[in-house]
Amino acid sequence: MAKTKLPKQAEDFPGWYVEVVKQAGMAEHGPAKGSMIIKPHGYAVWEHLQRALDDRFKATGHENFYFPLLIPMRLLEREADHVEGFAPEVAVVTHGGGEELEEPLAIRPTSETTIWNTYAKWIQSYRDLPLLYNQWCNVVRWEMRTRLFLRTSEFLWQEGHTAHATKQEAVEETLRMLEVYREVTEDVLAVPVIKGRKTANERFPGADETFTIEALMRDRKALQCGTSHFLGQNFAKAYDVTFLNKEGRQEHAWATSWGYTTRMIGGTIMTHGDDNGLKLPPAVAPVQVVIVPIYKTDEERDSVMGVATRMRDELAGGHNVRVRLDDRDQHRPGFKFSEWELKGVPLRLEIGPRDVAGDQVVVVDRAEGNKKQLSTGEAIASIGEMLDGVQRTLYAEAVSFRDANTHEISSYDEFVEGLEAEGGFWRGPWCGDGECETIISERTKATIRLLPIEAEDPGAACMHCGKPGTERATWARAY
Amino acid sequence: MAKTKLPKQAEDFPGWYVEVVKQAGMAEHGPAKGSMIIKPHGYAVWEHLQRALDDRFKATGHENFYFPLLIPMRLLEREADHVEGFAPEVAVVTHGGGEELEEPLAIRPTSETTIWNTYAKWIQSYRDLPLLYNQWCNVVRWEMRTRLFLRTSEFLWQEGHTAHATKQEAVEETLRMLEVYREVTEDVLAVPVIKGRKTANERFPGADETFTIEALMRDRKALQCGTSHFLGQNFAKAYDVTFLNKEGRQEHAWATSWGYTTRMIGGTIMTHGDDNGLKLPPAVAPVQVVIVPIYKTDEERDSVMGVATRMRDELAGGHNVRVRLDDRDQHRPGFKFSEWELKGVPLRLEIGPRDVAGDQVVVVDRAEGNKKQLSTGEAIASIGEMLDGVQRTLYAEAVSFRDANTHEISSYDEFVEGLEAEGGFWRGPWCGDGECETIISERTKATIRLLPIEAEDPGAACMHCGKPGTERATWARAY
Repeated sequence: MAKTKLPKQAEDFPGWYVEVVKQAGMAEHGPAKGSMIIKPHGYAVWEHLQRALDDRFKATGHENFYFPLLIPMRLLEREADHVEGFAPEVAVVTHGGGEELEEPLAIRPTSETTIWNTYAKWIQSYRDLPLLYNQWCNVVRWEMRTRLFLRTSEFLWQEGHTAHATKQEAVEETLRMLEVYREVTEDVLAVPVIKGRKTANERFPGADETFTIEALMRDRKALQCGTSHFLGQNFAKAYDVTFLNKEGRQEHAWATSWGYTTRMIGGTIMTHGDDNGLKLPPAVAPVQVVIVPIYKTDEERDSVMGVATRMRDELAGGHNVRVRLDDRDQHRPGFKFSEWELKGVPLRLEIGPRDVAGDQVVVVDRAEGNKKQLSTGEAIASIGEMLDGVQRTLYAEAVSFRDANTHEISSYDEFVEGLEAEGGFWRGPWCGDGECETIISERTKATIRLLPIEAEDPGAACMHCGKPGTERATWARAY
Repeated sequence: MAKTKLPKQAEDFPGWYVEVVKQAGMAEHGPAKGSMIIKPHGYAVWEHLQRALDDRFKATGHENFYFPLLIPMRLLEREADHVEGFAPEVAVVTHGGGEELEEPLAIRPTSETTIWNTYAKWIQSYRDLPLLYNQWCNVVRWEMRTRLFLRTSEFLWQEGHTAHATKQEAVEETLRMLEVYREVTEDVLAVPVIKGRKTANERFPGADETFTIEALMRDRKALQCGTSHFLGQNFAKAYDVTFLNKEGRQEHAWATSWGYTTRMIGGTIMTHGDDNGLKLPPAVAPVQVVIVPIYKTDEERDSVMGVATRMRDELAGGHNVRVRLDDRDQHRPGFKFSEWELKGVPLRLEIGPRDVAGDQVVVVDRAEGNKKQLSTGEAIASIGEMLDGVQRTLYAEAVSFRDANTHEISSYDEFVEGLEAEGGFWRGPWCGDGECETIISERTKATIRLLPIEAEDPGAACMHCGKPGTERATWARAY
């Protein structure tokens, strides 16, 4: 562990990121180009995140199902915008069982096509609606410029696919799931986000509207954290999904889809980490509390390990804390401190012979680096509160950082210069024209991350073209 | 639902199976040949089964990780037996991102190859061992003769992959995980199994020993329920995984792998189901208790629904039962009874106006079809006990069935005739010769399902060739 020194965030953020991901045991590159191995410390974060999302999906009435990995190419090609968006990224299976296939099969880049093809059979009447389904799976989008968690040819995600009898219901569902994403991202990952609507240029291929939550990483670049799509009747029309409505007329069903991926492990790392490594929010930390025993003699070892073991058992048992006692003999305490800091463990308990004598323990908080001495009883009794404190601190620090790096645009030049100098979110009036958006993007390498969910009159002309402003757009350079 | 009448099990077991899987909403065929859509009622069983397995994996010290779906062909080809076993079943990606790939990629049929290729980097010293890892994922094995859950080109599973410093540790791990599989299969799915060791012919490609648990389905055919492999040093040698042992010498690591799949949803259906449909064990039933209200007038509806709703809330809340109140107005109670029987719900509560007046409820048990009247208070207080009763009944009935269909072989002719007439497990002396095994298999269409974990002297000559018996083999026709 920590074999190479981490680059400083301020000097080389991408270098810091890739090293911290590898050294902390979160992930590494796989043997095929663009692929990733999610290591146990990274996968455990995903498991906690999955649980948090899945519990909320079920609480909002959704059930899980599973559709096949391989989709016949002809099915993929029926929704025109969708195929145009995804065809360039598709991986294709041409051989199986030693023979060339009659029809090539796409590995799913997302599953709207095959799911809506099947919904045609499942939906006959308004009584069959809504369908509120989700699946947890892997998808492949061909991608050679790998960035661990953020951009890999295969990633893990969930994709929700719902069908509704009315437009209003589908829009409500789209926004309900966006709110679930906001809640999980902020309350579980401690990553503050802004909610909004994508421009037509940035929409999901086949959607009428795409809604998004966006966060700011510590290098002041934005990260799209989750998207929820109102698909209108586009897929119902492409796959012929009609139902008999209450009035006895055939109607196309209304659709939503929404997805959240393993990239948010990367987003969590880039929101909270520092030059010493990860800072994992307690809600998803695989190890919430590490106990490091300090001793020199065998006699000291016995008494320290006695207390340490008892504390571990109490925390794991009655207090339901994910606790690890680092009893490795081959490493010194200082090495262990650094390693668990690198791995982002929220709280460290240090116990030495003097602590045993005084029935006390040193508690070190990874969020702020605070060190305090508590009696063992106090430490155990307040462990939940201290973990909550770390969770709150991480969130509050990220909010401060985000707010300090969010700017109102007063002129186009100021925006261009400010963005180049400082990064961050920049909010200002835009004409709503996709061509104008593209020109600004080419000039600044920034994109419109979002518009307000309900269009707001910006009360000023477009910062670039000077035409009447119709939207208040938030720009940033993004992952 | 239940649009077509189910075939009778005794007359057409395969027809019964496919219809019950579809009509109960467990699964259906996907658009690509050999593929399967796992529907919500089927997937929920998988989720409960996953939780039961995963909890036990973690309790035995394992962590989850995730390796990529796509494996470069050259990696797949290093362990000779392994590639010979799996090459004919591999699906191959030849194109990605609109271009032909430099090197074709296999979709994992299982992941020993890529995982051991990486373990070479993770394992340096005995201090790095053991590695106790597992992954939940999809795999593809090309297969055109689809049977839902039992045989599909893609299926979901977990695959454990552990590395150890000594042979003894690896063998212990192999048997430990076999025991976890036995426990989950018997205690959670209520499917009784026998444990054993596979013959060389039936071993996993690349294993030194394969251990298995086998169950008997209601058509008297056997189903392999889970396998645990002792891989010796075969993969360590093929992928050059060595470590410095405690004595300071380089040594190859010892390996195990073990897998459990969605086929066991099919195994559960075929163990417990009857002519009316599924019987799901309460431990995995998506709905454990269904409440069916019975009323004619609006006034009756109000009073019945009042009681039904209160019971649902109490069962779901304080008693943590997965309960559904079937409040659909468009269906009559008789229709609902049949539908929930088809779907295998363990307990049905019927509440009509007379029940409301008497503060009572009718409880119907899907396992035995028993009907009894209880006060609402008694019904709620004893719901957990009644569910446990259903779980026990299903298990006990399956044990009786299995035992009644397990035979000791007294002569080869009796075995051949008895197997043809009655199916079931047949146990008798075998010489241990793979050629003799193959001849018997070709004649009888049965295979040796297992040998005892520790070889037992059968005390008699091989039933077929008359050479000295070295093994007591259990034969059956199998899925």
